[in-house]
Amino acid sequence: MTTTRTQVAIIGGGPSGLLLSQLLDLNGIDSIVIERKSREYVLGRIRAGVLEAGSVKLLQDAGVGERMAREGQTHDGVELSWHDERLHIDLKALTGTPVTVYGQTEITHDLYDAREARGGQVIHEAEVQRIEGAETDSPVVVYQKDGQEHRIECRFVAGCDGFHGPARKAIPDTHRKEFIREYPFGWLGMLSRTPPATEELIYATHDRGFALCSMRSDEISRYYVQVPLTEKVEDWSPDRFWDELKRRIPADVAANLVTDGEVLEMSIAPLRSFVSEPMRYGSLFLAGDAAHIVPPTGAKGLNLAIGDVYYLHRALEQAIKNNNTAGIDGYSDTALSRVWKCERFSWWMTSILHDFPDQGDFEKRMQRAEFEYLARSETARKSLAENYVGLPY
Amino acid sequence: MTTTRTQVAIIGGGPSGLLLSQLLDLNGIDSIVIERKSREYVLGRIRAGVLEAGSVKLLQDAGVGERMAREGQTHDGVELSWHDERLHIDLKALTGTPVTVYGQTEITHDLYDAREARGGQVIHEAEVQRIEGAETDSPVVVYQKDGQEHRIECRFVAGCDGFHGPARKAIPDTHRKEFIREYPFGWLGMLSRTPPATEELIYATHDRGFALCSMRSDEISRYYVQVPLTEKVEDWSPDRFWDELKRRIPADVAANLVTDGEVLEMSIAPLRSFVSEPMRYGSLFLAGDAAHIVPPTGAKGLNLAIGDVYYLHRALEQAIKNNNTAGIDGYSDTALSRVWKCERFSWWMTSILHDFPDQGDFEKRMQRAEFEYLARSETARKSLAENYVGLPY
Repeated sequence: MTTTRTQVAIIGGGPSGLLLSQLLDLNGIDSIVIERKSREYVLGRIRAGVLEAGSVKLLQDAGVGERMAREGQTHDGVELSWHDERLHIDLKALTGTPVTVYGQTEITHDLYDAREARGGQVIHEAEVQRIEGAETDSPVVVYQKDGQEHRIECRFVAGCDGFHGPARKAIPDTHRKEFIREYPFGWLGMLSRTPPATEELIYATHDRGFALCSMRSDEISRYYVQVPLTEKVEDWSPDRFWDELKRRIPADVAANLVTDGEVLEMSIAPLRSFVSEPMRYGSLFLAGDAAHIVPPTGAKGLNLAIGDVYYLHRALEQAIKNNNTAGIDGYSDTALSRVWKCERFSWWMTSILHDFPDQGDFEKRMQRAEFEYLARSETARKSLAENYVGLPY
Repeated sequence: MTTTRTQVAIIGGGPSGLLLSQLLDLNGIDSIVIERKSREYVLGRIRAGVLEAGSVKLLQDAGVGERMAREGQTHDGVELSWHDERLHIDLKALTGTPVTVYGQTEITHDLYDAREARGGQVIHEAEVQRIEGAETDSPVVVYQKDGQEHRIECRFVAGCDGFHGPARKAIPDTHRKEFIREYPFGWLGMLSRTPPATEELIYATHDRGFALCSMRSDEISRYYVQVPLTEKVEDWSPDRFWDELKRRIPADVAANLVTDGEVLEMSIAPLRSFVSEPMRYGSLFLAGDAAHIVPPTGAKGLNLAIGDVYYLHRALEQAIKNNNTAGIDGYSDTALSRVWKCERFSWWMTSILHDFPDQGDFEKRMQRAEFEYLARSETARKSLAENYVGLPY
């Protein structure tokens, strides 16, 4: 058994944990990141790719903006479609702000490089067993690595360990409340080495189900089709996927689809809305998926995690450097206020764009009416746009 | 049996039928209005009271704007509340347009006076039996009055006869489709001779259920509380109503509530969204509640009927005076496009403001997130406002 000391123990070596560690470091605060998986595993995860301007700025402030500026794509707009009808949402014109397409995998990569360059400590393949004294001023994170138990004594613990991680569960049930909404479908995603069919993302509504045309770069496409939760990825050949996708997106987009590239990944993910309140328990703070999940419609998941890290790094700095607890005392309420707004947007985007199996004819027409209202009202488009590019911190 | 001839037979002597008759008359087109009830009965019905600017303009164009201009109240804003929190929506500042509060009963009164002044024909206590040849160019409306059958031969039939009227049912089932959403609650309404508690309407959300503070004039208040559909109006004394209302509205508004005036009416109405497509069948055209119902949240019902009359009177004039069928051919699609947008708004307002018995904790928080998004985003308030003051014709 080893015992080490640090100011902030960060559970989870995904983008939130690494970004928090980096921002604290730049402000002279020590931290140790504990990650359950290997670095290769973390870097192999396929995740989101649309960044709000606020997320981009925080990554730049963290000193990891260089490759993103070079390789990321600036998108001034996004499209919705309804069968063959297309509706352009001019994000830039409506809000003054574009979004940036740059894969979460790349961000994680850049953050690892940055942590390494500054000698940051990231312990991989380390399984957190428990958090001792989370309610006190001297919590201890106990983890196992290579069959040995290790202890990290610290002042604060940040739970950046995702939905399945141990941090949220360290808050006693009597002190927290969960809000959950499961959707009766999932997204079958394909990552392929093909140039994207369109310059902008297309969120496509169709009687056969929702589809999304997305991308990671000029060479890598990311497509999704809505599927019932009973579907198995093994039953989906690339050909079957391409055929289904083509039927759901506007014909002119389908005609541009390049389908002969290497398939890099296919998987099915369920859609879920989830919030656990509060986001603080004593010296333990949750950030990102550890505290909340959004369905991927609207691309809020990673951005919401980065928003939490924005609030949290400032709160921790204030507490550690100035002995001012205002930030940490307000963290949960401040973060949750933004979280719920993004939950609302993600839930709304999911609700208006998908085919719901138990939906009546009236509800289907309400979806159509949303599409037509968006098509006709600049205010409606601006409301979508201001949420899509990111509500202010 | 008598047979008369007119250009347009109008079934229903409520505000839509009378307004259509008046507008056609001003353009030199003859019509006869057939109303099932007595004039006294029609004028005794308590209905909506908030008019969009477009509705006000059409009533003015019809020559019935004089008393409305004198007695109607101009409202530059409307309020939402959540327990004791209040949120002002500045309609005028957000859209340039106010709304007018003037009771439907008064409009009907003014329209009757106007029809009388111009010698318009309104046949009361006349029950329409059937519409013959609706699909032809020479339909006949057959009605019964005083035990006698009468026939009106005409070129066009307008069904302004409400949800329960015979006009919609004259369209064969094979030619129409109904969309319906029933809400699991009703509104218990009270009309009282008391000065309103506030200058503007308040749409109040509360854990005990929705409430609405409304008015008809400076002396007449109109209040509502959401109740389960199982409630009976006989079980509600005025005192019980006032007590329940006070618990649901902000405390400072409740403190201003005048409760000692005469109770003029109390009744319970279920909430329903309903659309029947199409709104035309041959020479028969539907307008207002005959074709669609909205829940009263957002006050769209009467305005939607007036919007239909706007499209319909122009279409009929074009067809009759210029022999141009473009207007009547497009009527159903044109009217329905606006109808569905208003259905969306009314459904949304109903969804975010009421307590739904089967709603989960997540959905309740989505309602709260809507309120907070409205409180924080001018774009969100503008979207509500542009719908509330009326989408353009």
